[in-house]
Amino acid sequence: MSSPAEGADGDIPRVGLAHGAGGKATRQLVGDVLAGGHVDVAELTVGLDAMDDGAVIPVGDQHLVITTDSHVIQPAFFRGGDIGRLAISGTVNDLAMMGATDVLGLTSGVIVEANYPIADLERIAASMHDACAEADAPIVSGDTKVMGKGELDGVVINTTGVGVAEQITPDVHLEVDDVILVTGQVGSHGISLLAAREGIEFGADLRSDVRPINDLIASLIDACGADVHVLKDPTRMGVAGSLNEIARKSEVGIELREERIPISSDVKGAGEMLGLDPLQIANEGIALVGVAPTAAAKALEVLRAHPKGEDAAAIGKAIEDHTGHVIVDTGIGRRFLREPASEPHPRIC
Amino acid sequence: MSSPAEGADGDIPRVGLAHGAGGKATRQLVGDVLAGGHVDVAELTVGLDAMDDGAVIPVGDQHLVITTDSHVIQPAFFRGGDIGRLAISGTVNDLAMMGATDVLGLTSGVIVEANYPIADLERIAASMHDACAEADAPIVSGDTKVMGKGELDGVVINTTGVGVAEQITPDVHLEVDDVILVTGQVGSHGISLLAAREGIEFGADLRSDVRPINDLIASLIDACGADVHVLKDPTRMGVAGSLNEIARKSEVGIELREERIPISSDVKGAGEMLGLDPLQIANEGIALVGVAPTAAAKALEVLRAHPKGEDAAAIGKAIEDHTGHVIVDTGIGRRFLREPASEPHPRIC
Repeated sequence: MSSPAEGADGDIPRVGLAHGAGGKATRQLVGDVLAGGHVDVAELTVGLDAMDDGAVIPVGDQHLVITTDSHVIQPAFFRGGDIGRLAISGTVNDLAMMGATDVLGLTSGVIVEANYPIADLERIAASMHDACAEADAPIVSGDTKVMGKGELDGVVINTTGVGVAEQITPDVHLEVDDVILVTGQVGSHGISLLAAREGIEFGADLRSDVRPINDLIASLIDACGADVHVLKDPTRMGVAGSLNEIARKSEVGIELREERIPISSDVKGAGEMLGLDPLQIANEGIALVGVAPTAAAKALEVLRAHPKGEDAAAIGKAIEDHTGHVIVDTGIGRRFLREPASEPHPRIC
Repeated sequence: MSSPAEGADGDIPRVGLAHGAGGKATRQLVGDVLAGGHVDVAELTVGLDAMDDGAVIPVGDQHLVITTDSHVIQPAFFRGGDIGRLAISGTVNDLAMMGATDVLGLTSGVIVEANYPIADLERIAASMHDACAEADAPIVSGDTKVMGKGELDGVVINTTGVGVAEQITPDVHLEVDDVILVTGQVGSHGISLLAAREGIEFGADLRSDVRPINDLIASLIDACGADVHVLKDPTRMGVAGSLNEIARKSEVGIELREERIPISSDVKGAGEMLGLDPLQIANEGIALVGVAPTAAAKALEVLRAHPKGEDAAAIGKAIEDHTGHVIVDTGIGRRFLREPASEPHPRIC
């Protein structure tokens, strides 16, 4: 096979940092190497091939949704959260994005470096438990491993989630004229992380909004049901990457109105100083929603009535042209919104 | 709280290697730190508190079993298998030990060091897929992260499994007079790993027997049903640790007949040279079974008729005395079989 030889120090193809960033290089690695020979299962509705947020398996008359994520964020503690809150939120939200807002159970696989302060591990555990309570999601199975000093830097956490959905919301169901909503402000998580990593102090309002939003999504689904065509949380690849993925998989174009995208002035300012586009940055407390035009007003009303959806906005719509692409109307012209080929900022989720 | 301050280089309590080895120190860390504040769920039959191989959640009229494991074995490739085969087998077998021999789905969370050879990752993926085919277990959801050089040594894999069980076989159900069976030869996996790590070459027959055994367990359950009281795979803490755990949780004693424990002469010889007791060493291709005395002969017959159970043996029984302990009858006397306080061999699973 012809894998990219990024980071090669010889002639043999090696893994590069971009392979883990969730973008094109990841899709290539996962598609070619990891999913290549995977076992076919006839009964699988949404499997590894679909590269959606989670897999769906029919059990009796219910849809069981399963999703997994490893969290390697550095620093482990940041303004607005920590790796524990992120790990729970990330998995709960991936389930919610498939329509499984009721979490049956989470598993927690912790790998920690020898000599890691136990007090830090306690803080992380407490934070996980708080996020679990917030999401009404129990940790049902755990595993703990320790690696030697020099073998692992800090702590990594894998969380896998199992949930039940009455209605599945995969990436592929966006239809022309559907309205694109975002449930909150864009870019806070990634920009605050990177600002902290650069050692730059911004205002106290610049903080990660990492949180479980299955309650917000549940109220949306309750109100709009099957009119909710697509749900996706713009994590590693940001809003730009996620919308491109939806456009590609749903075989439509997407047009955004730039001035409607909610981005706080703190995030805008920090992004400008750091040379980062908030649309290309990881989030973990918001979702993108594709909803039938007849239900868009209702959806927006329900989202805004929820404490986690106050900043929700209609930011664009699905169009027939430019299939597989995202166009931004800036007010003075139109441009393509590209997805990052590789994410230049490793370990922010 | 009063956590052990192993590996402390100052006054603050820090994580030690023993915390991840699956023994007493792990139980303390998980019990005190990680499970401390976990969310209670009324409907949870077997939860994190039970520290069994997996959690059980009723869904409709079925038992959903969920289990997670992170695999950090070094070296990643060894005689008889590799980290990929181990990761699949470990999770499939944990499900089987709860009675869930039908695997609904596995998730695979791979974290790999930047610069890792892609060919090695392909070998691992191929090996995972082979083990999945053997276990009839699909990988339904995956996640890939890359950490920088110096941040992670090699590759670690978290596998989480979801299965369905008609009948649950937790650790706590061993009854006095139950017969203890082991489904195959003891110690091959751990001893070959450690021999390889020491650079010692033994005969070609010394190899890990890592394999999924859900098919073997399914045939046992088919034949003996509710007479199978306990199933446990003696992984990180070895046969000694697992039997002590069963005795403790079931509140009975266990008496073993030493000469009946199947251990190959290669494993015995290598164990003697390395100063290791095969009963204290990790396995990943065998199970311990507690079965009602009336069904013991049938169980043994069924196991031995299966290609993965040819070496199955009845090695002891549950007794009223010595509650919570394991006694070995050596032929010339009786001794306590202690569980290792800490596992001296990190990263063999």
